[in-house]
Amino acid sequence: MIRAELLTTGTELLLGSVLNTHVRFIAEEIFPLGMRLSRQVTVPDGAAIGEAMRESFSRCDILFVTGGLGPTSDDITRDLAAELFGVTMREDPAIIESITERFARRGFTMNASIARQAMVPEGAEILPNNNGPAPGLYFPPRKWNGHDAKSPHLFLLPGPPRELHPMFTSFVLPKLMDLQEKTAGVCRTFKIVGMGESRVEALLEADLRCLAEVEIGYCARPGEVDLRLIGAVEAVDCCTPLVRERCAGALVSEDGRELAQVLIDQLVESQATFAVAESCTGGGLADAITGVPGASRVFLGGVVAYANAVKSEILGVPAQLIEAHGAVSAEVAAAMASGVREKLGADFALSTTGIAGPGGGCDEKPVGTVFIGCVSKSGGVGVERFNFPSDRHTFKHLTTQTAMLRLLNLLRDAR
Amino acid sequence: MIRAELLTTGTELLLGSVLNTHVRFIAEEIFPLGMRLSRQVTVPDGAAIGEAMRESFSRCDILFVTGGLGPTSDDITRDLAAELFGVTMREDPAIIESITERFARRGFTMNASIARQAMVPEGAEILPNNNGPAPGLYFPPRKWNGHDAKSPHLFLLPGPPRELHPMFTSFVLPKLMDLQEKTAGVCRTFKIVGMGESRVEALLEADLRCLAEVEIGYCARPGEVDLRLIGAVEAVDCCTPLVRERCAGALVSEDGRELAQVLIDQLVESQATFAVAESCTGGGLADAITGVPGASRVFLGGVVAYANAVKSEILGVPAQLIEAHGAVSAEVAAAMASGVREKLGADFALSTTGIAGPGGGCDEKPVGTVFIGCVSKSGGVGVERFNFPSDRHTFKHLTTQTAMLRLLNLLRDAR
Repeated sequence: MIRAELLTTGTELLLGSVLNTHVRFIAEEIFPLGMRLSRQVTVPDGAAIGEAMRESFSRCDILFVTGGLGPTSDDITRDLAAELFGVTMREDPAIIESITERFARRGFTMNASIARQAMVPEGAEILPNNNGPAPGLYFPPRKWNGHDAKSPHLFLLPGPPRELHPMFTSFVLPKLMDLQEKTAGVCRTFKIVGMGESRVEALLEADLRCLAEVEIGYCARPGEVDLRLIGAVEAVDCCTPLVRERCAGALVSEDGRELAQVLIDQLVESQATFAVAESCTGGGLADAITGVPGASRVFLGGVVAYANAVKSEILGVPAQLIEAHGAVSAEVAAAMASGVREKLGADFALSTTGIAGPGGGCDEKPVGTVFIGCVSKSGGVGVERFNFPSDRHTFKHLTTQTAMLRLLNLLRDAR
Repeated sequence: MIRAELLTTGTELLLGSVLNTHVRFIAEEIFPLGMRLSRQVTVPDGAAIGEAMRESFSRCDILFVTGGLGPTSDDITRDLAAELFGVTMREDPAIIESITERFARRGFTMNASIARQAMVPEGAEILPNNNGPAPGLYFPPRKWNGHDAKSPHLFLLPGPPRELHPMFTSFVLPKLMDLQEKTAGVCRTFKIVGMGESRVEALLEADLRCLAEVEIGYCARPGEVDLRLIGAVEAVDCCTPLVRERCAGALVSEDGRELAQVLIDQLVESQATFAVAESCTGGGLADAITGVPGASRVFLGGVVAYANAVKSEILGVPAQLIEAHGAVSAEVAAAMASGVREKLGADFALSTTGIAGPGGGCDEKPVGTVFIGCVSKSGGVGVERFNFPSDRHTFKHLTTQTAMLRLLNLLRDAR
């Protein structure tokens, strides 16, 4: 078993001002390769990083270090690595050029502290950073500080998740794959929305194990699960029909594509436009949709009708309807969806109205209650009621996912 | 400075199936006592816990260990502690009684594995658990395994947050107060939007260091930086005016509050309502605003005008204006903001129109170009042009932040 360790650095992690999500991310990325973290350590910025690296060096085969590659005075990870290996630093002209260009685009000029990010210890390979100025660094195993044993494979990676994640996927994983025994298999990711991890496991795992020799992995996020099958192509192919059958209506993609992307692709294929009317999701549904490049081909727009007056005046929901049934009701959800479809001249429309909380609940409609409306091309309206009792952020996310899944299934059924 | 360490145990943490929230919780609990975590380590269930405890024993003054106090075979934290101190275990009759009663209430009967939770190493104090069967344990400093130096104050605590949190507040904090250093400092987090990390450092760091003895830390996220000053109250107070002066217009809060929250609070204070008209942010602006609990007190709603027809028909932007200047123009941004303010009857309004990319750019208006409009209570419209050449997600985020900051500054100036 390969022993991999993760050293997360940053005073903000130990102060509790930032939640450490790197452990989860890296654990889930390396799992399909049959690797696991045997230890994770957090130390503050500064000399403690060097001490913790030394300790890990004599314990593990692979060491990931995150953070401390930035431009400020407390960013010293790369200097500490150079010290451990007893090598000097050189300024890399390609990195200087890329940083200069990056800053020029934003109208800034380079200064000395920014240029620190272009310093590379001798013998390190550069891992490109497409989302920030500081590149990652990879040090293959070698003698260190007079020790006989070699150092682990050392990866110095950026702290911000939006820089770390793509760098890990594009440049770290391929290197890790070289350390694995050759298995010429495939990894197929089934994206399943609206089913819990344990439900998917109960529905599938035992039967999949009988069908073929595959490694089964799960990655759960609020409201969705990635089911990962790893094995020979034939084995994974053999399992696929069972997943399709048992998860019908919840299976969004078989290639890891996100729900919003799949929905946009389906609308393009169906040559249909759509619009949204949001109350409780407050823009979150439109935001998820417009996060997909090219969404404008099929998405006309939306109305965030937070105040009741907006529901009436912009969407044409009769004030008496709101008074009779309440803003959070099947009737209002239906009227919102029909209203936005008509106003914006769309083929399809979705609506959401519910109680995100923390306040606003009652016995009949507790916090977490939500009505999702969907109007089809023919003008037919369907409304479903759900209950997502969670924090405000998760509630908005689950409602958004469920609404998109409804429209996707409507479009698929119409094929 | 008291050195406190946290050892979190559990294979699920290293597999990424559970997010480690204990670091944040404990860090925030002990900070007001002038204590900070100098290290945090996660190890899997089993023998690695003993090894990690031994390492911490020679490094720190206080050690918190979470997890491994339950009834199953891999719950061995208390046995490992007994081994380290060379003491035997005794069954505690009061705990047996409380567990028996607890299980009887649920209709279960005691069995041998459950009774393991009542085993207490000699010399340990019991920390009552009002939310689960297994109590916590406290070991005052003492000789261990033949070492001359004494062990740290050792706390063995349950893993589930709903058991850990109340136990920590009720039984651990009082013990820690006795160890407290006299000079408890403060940590002040200045949230700065629209300035890069290295720009903030260049503007402030040298002068802050001359002013007072403070620890300076940075935590950067796209479009914002948290500047953290830690030190004696007087020292941090002495630095504060300089931060305010140099970061004026970009300083959002001095207590870590997020921009959206600060904006909502300011609108509530100003007794003003607002609305948004979004093109390029596609719902992201409304989503950020409605993420704040109670946003409905001041936020009426918004229009996501992705298609040009929506800009004209719902917001009343003249089609000729769009034709003459293009949808991405100062003129259209102004008309969108005025239109949504009027339609929704709001005091203030914001608008965004730009090119999120990856497609759609031209020489004159490349990808990343955005116009942000803002209408004040008097009806006066201001439009500013920005350039955020980044990926689609970051572009939307930066535009959203910049728009909120504009309105916040407008409200603050009007005070």
